[in-house]
Amino acid sequence: MRRTSFENAKSSLARSLEIVGDWWTLLIVRDAFMGIRRFDDFQEHLGIARNILAARIRRLMDFGILERKLYQVKPKRYEYVLTESGKDLKIILLAIKQWGDKNIYEGKGHPVSISHKDCGEEISVDIVCRLCMEVLSDDNERLDWSPGDEMSDNDRRVYSRFNTNSTFEMNLG
Amino acid sequence: MRRTSFENAKSSLARSLEIVGDWWTLLIVRDAFMGIRRFDDFQEHLGIARNILAARIRRLMDFGILERKLYQVKPKRYEYVLTESGKDLKIILLAIKQWGDKNIYEGKGHPVSISHKDCGEEISVDIVCRLCMEVLSDDNERLDWSPGDEMSDNDRRVYSRFNTNSTFEMNLG
Repeated sequence: MRRTSFENAKSSLARSLEIVGDWWTLLIVRDAFMGIRRFDDFQEHLGIARNILAARIRRLMDFGILERKLYQVKPKRYEYVLTESGKDLKIILLAIKQWGDKNIYEGKGHPVSISHKDCGEEISVDIVCRLCMEVLSDDNERLDWSPGDEMSDNDRRVYSRFNTNSTFEMNLG
Repeated sequence: MRRTSFENAKSSLARSLEIVGDWWTLLIVRDAFMGIRRFDDFQEHLGIARNILAARIRRLMDFGILERKLYQVKPKRYEYVLTESGKDLKIILLAIKQWGDKNIYEGKGHPVSISHKDCGEEISVDIVCRLCMEVLSDDNERLDWSPGDEMSDNDRRVYSRFNTNSTFEMNLG
């Protein structure tokens, strides 16, 4: 039922969540970003059952997030690396980490710090207007929302009913 | 086993995923951003079983993401609204949407368009250095990674083994 509901959902968010929306998926991707490539190394670091890990990795390959590369011929041994689409997940991981640093660790130190090499400042994940080169994450966020061609009728009904001023401003601000 | 493993994980990402890392959680939050507040409206829009929705909403309240407000006294009726911590999830939703727009819809139109009110440009979720006011998401990304006080010994071993140059650049670039 969950699956059916999602396949029908004409929403980037819903369809992306079907792919990346489970814990292990994103932790495997995180480990791949850290440089882990081999099954045994994923297994050791994540402490996950081998059969579950194998299923998750297969799923990530089906969705084009990881790809398998032969690194030894006799016997055949494969390692798993991020595709371009997999590398694009980085900002999602960093956005989740940023949320946790603020809302779980509450700014009191956090396990990993990521900073800009040129100046040492902690990086930030933000909503940006690349035309105005403005950060819109804070009080100056002024976003217009509009339904695209691909929006389902059901979503269209809901959006028009609840977003009385047809912008995100009221609810997202 | 999943739960145990996560509670031990000293990682903002892992601990955040425990809270937000399931499909329904983020879809409920998305609906809350759209302006939905009442149980029946969530239920109708998401097409989710009432008992599952009730459990998910309770969980979101336990984690401080939604809070309940009385809107009618006789009989008592509640609505569910985002807390500050819940509103902070917005950028995660937008980052996931952006990933899906590019990697699922492949730039060929998408269900929802969100643009900067001042200029009409589609917004973007980016890695930013707020000191240099630079977008670091592209080729100019130069990030230093360092373990914080809260990092577990296991993670520390893995990071030092796989990140030979102690920066993210090699693997994340």
